[in-house]
Amino acid sequence: MPPIVLDRATDVPLAVQLADALRAAAASGSLRVGDRLPSTRVLAADLAVSRTVTAAAYEQLLAEGWVQGRRGSGTYVTAAPPVGGAGPVAPARGSDERRVRPAQWDERATRTGGVDLRAGTPCVEVLDRAAWRRAWRAAADAPPDAEPDAVGVAAFRAAVVEHLLRHRGMPADPGAVLATSGSTSAIAELAATLPRGARVAVEEPGYQRARWALQAAGLHVLPVPLDGRGLDVAALPAGLAAVYCTPAHQYPLGALLPADRRVALVERARADGFLVIEDDYDGELRFDVAPLPLLASLGPDVVVHLGTVSKILTPTLGAGWIVAAPAVRAALLRHRERTGQRPSRAGQRVFAALAAHGDLARHLRRLRTELGARRAAVVSALGADGVPLRGDRAGAHLVVGLPGAAEEVAVLAAAARRGVLLDGLARHFAGAPTAAGVVLGYAGPARSQLEPALAGVTAAVREVLGRP
Amino acid sequence: MPPIVLDRATDVPLAVQLADALRAAAASGSLRVGDRLPSTRVLAADLAVSRTVTAAAYEQLLAEGWVQGRRGSGTYVTAAPPVGGAGPVAPARGSDERRVRPAQWDERATRTGGVDLRAGTPCVEVLDRAAWRRAWRAAADAPPDAEPDAVGVAAFRAAVVEHLLRHRGMPADPGAVLATSGSTSAIAELAATLPRGARVAVEEPGYQRARWALQAAGLHVLPVPLDGRGLDVAALPAGLAAVYCTPAHQYPLGALLPADRRVALVERARADGFLVIEDDYDGELRFDVAPLPLLASLGPDVVVHLGTVSKILTPTLGAGWIVAAPAVRAALLRHRERTGQRPSRAGQRVFAALAAHGDLARHLRRLRTELGARRAAVVSALGADGVPLRGDRAGAHLVVGLPGAAEEVAVLAAAARRGVLLDGLARHFAGAPTAAGVVLGYAGPARSQLEPALAGVTAAVREVLGRP
Repeated sequence: MPPIVLDRATDVPLAVQLADALRAAAASGSLRVGDRLPSTRVLAADLAVSRTVTAAAYEQLLAEGWVQGRRGSGTYVTAAPPVGGAGPVAPARGSDERRVRPAQWDERATRTGGVDLRAGTPCVEVLDRAAWRRAWRAAADAPPDAEPDAVGVAAFRAAVVEHLLRHRGMPADPGAVLATSGSTSAIAELAATLPRGARVAVEEPGYQRARWALQAAGLHVLPVPLDGRGLDVAALPAGLAAVYCTPAHQYPLGALLPADRRVALVERARADGFLVIEDDYDGELRFDVAPLPLLASLGPDVVVHLGTVSKILTPTLGAGWIVAAPAVRAALLRHRERTGQRPSRAGQRVFAALAAHGDLARHLRRLRTELGARRAAVVSALGADGVPLRGDRAGAHLVVGLPGAAEEVAVLAAAARRGVLLDGLARHFAGAPTAAGVVLGYAGPARSQLEPALAGVTAAVREVLGRP
Repeated sequence: MPPIVLDRATDVPLAVQLADALRAAAASGSLRVGDRLPSTRVLAADLAVSRTVTAAAYEQLLAEGWVQGRRGSGTYVTAAPPVGGAGPVAPARGSDERRVRPAQWDERATRTGGVDLRAGTPCVEVLDRAAWRRAWRAAADAPPDAEPDAVGVAAFRAAVVEHLLRHRGMPADPGAVLATSGSTSAIAELAATLPRGARVAVEEPGYQRARWALQAAGLHVLPVPLDGRGLDVAALPAGLAAVYCTPAHQYPLGALLPADRRVALVERARADGFLVIEDDYDGELRFDVAPLPLLASLGPDVVVHLGTVSKILTPTLGAGWIVAAPAVRAALLRHRERTGQRPSRAGQRVFAALAAHGDLARHLRRLRTELGARRAAVVSALGADGVPLRGDRAGAHLVVGLPGAAEEVAVLAAAARRGVLLDGLARHFAGAPTAAGVVLGYAGPARSQLEPALAGVTAAVREVLGRP
């Protein structure tokens, strides 16, 4: 074991620090594939931390697939993460908005060129290349800017207004829109405008990067369990500064927050004086009902609405948006002014050009058709076995329910052996997982790869559940 | 006066908060042009802060030109800042990297379309539009990315390596380069990797945004005075985590850090175990001697090198770079991984395309020729009166030395009356200013505007100094 130093002065939980350190040790080669980790008890004693800390760190690495536990014989390193640090920097794996870490990628999957079915990758296959080129050409029409811009390109904000009206049914004033570098950086910016130590509720399970961005800003994150109808507004604790949620397609479980809950959340926000951060993840991509009114439509005074182009187009553009009340915008602009951090205009220009030529609307139609067909393929491949599927009415991922944590880890491993990368539910929980399953994203791979990959997943599930 | 609430729990100095609040009040209309502010003594009593706080806030607003002091009759609001908050958001003024706030812009200057001679704006006039279009077209050749990327586009990092070798004499491995969103955001990212409360030395006077970004991350900023030869390495206090400096063309005074100081700084960093953050501001733009070896060449183990395309091209691209040792890169990548913040690739693609076609090298040659000619025009217009000029051997700004703070404020106001925006030295100090003068940037305006604007500055200086 390499020496491990934990920093008790930061806001980063010790378990997260420990998992980071072990991952880094595996990446740098101080831990190698096949090495046995000390028991959680021994390591806890060595580091003078509680065993909860070491157990949580090991669980995290287990869920990510870097280590495996063998019953009765300890925990072993099974794969080495790609390294970002020493030597030539490897291109980062793991996706921008919705996927958090390099997950399990065993040696066989790497050798055979595995198929990545983790959620969070957009379907770039359906983006028309001629439209893409047209948009970049048009983006060069405006001369280079001499001045920086904290608000965002006017044409981009106008395109966002049009997009919100057409696809999300929300009228907005261009003056209420700020460009961002994407949803996660928007969360980090919002976090920086809240007082340190403030309490922010986050869905449990929920979006891990949102939790981390909030914690990195010194906020206190409170996980709020979901009931069968999503975020339970009545269960929200008092004294909140903000609630972060994904009402359109809860990440990761995929529920649509019902209308009465939406109204209740906005009313509660007004009564208690907290902000609602509505991450409109997958909002453009419903397959069943007409979209419910956005939280931001119901409560523009208390709701901050976040959107991104990364999931409907590509993370190349690094662009997203915030729609918020004047006081929130002013606070964000003060923060940008103070830190000099501004969203890049290059990607905003390209998005605006795509929208201006009608290419964005055409793309979204194609995208919905394609994802609808892919979803049908997933449901038909996996649903046939009677495995419960959750959250399949929208977006680009669903959850395959499994009986427990052991089955979850086993399915991840069995799929990886078949060259398919999946993501476990466990790591989306801040606390102990209360549900088990795998998160399956179907937007990312080439269409031709999807059917064989689904066959691999089906076989993995059958193997673990002991079905024929 | 509107109610003002100061937050004693944050790291933001009370004077900065107060100046922000007053600026916001003027922007929102709660303070109007012509309103008289309470005396610093009365306001200090009202807010239960020391009079140093109110005096510093007023001085800041005075230097920025929002208020003016009339001897014996108090301080009056003279202009309203553009608002970013309420109602339709006005496009932000004030420049990305080197200029901090909307500065004095009196009504006449606005009416007559004043000329902005504040430092920090690039010379977009010399950028060849055909090359600009070619670069965007080429940037569309690569398909949209499905995966995000914390490291940066490979072609961009290769272009940076080539640029550093050709224009800064530094060989670097592409693996040592991380793309950034620009220098200030790079400083903020580096700050986030240092322990909260760590001590960071910053040149005094120095780059205000760097100080703010460091403070916003909870670091303790120590201003380090400059002597006649720049940063005095022997005067650095003990216990530093980092030193931020601009050795190529000190901002704002314009000195070139001599070679012996460079060696001493690197040796001290090694001995004391601190990081040197080398902001290579204006490094590409020297008019006299061949460039001195970069700090990063002398001490790649202890120096983090920052560059940006905002000053040599345009802030539109939102791209810059960090060259750093493996441990620093790993810490930055962990922070990016944790917060999900990645530099936008759209601008990186455009920069890489410009470099690949030789257009970047041609542009830099044109830029140096143009800025050399502009500098000669400035020196000939202002130097004729025997006014001392500082820092005119490089870059795109110089300092016009003045006898004291009163003359500084008077020249700013006299120039503004003639439709010319200048920037005072005072606001670049964290503490009480020890030098007076105006900072004059000559890259931003159209060439045709420069001569008349310089005539205005000359007249303003003559008026204040009482010369014929």
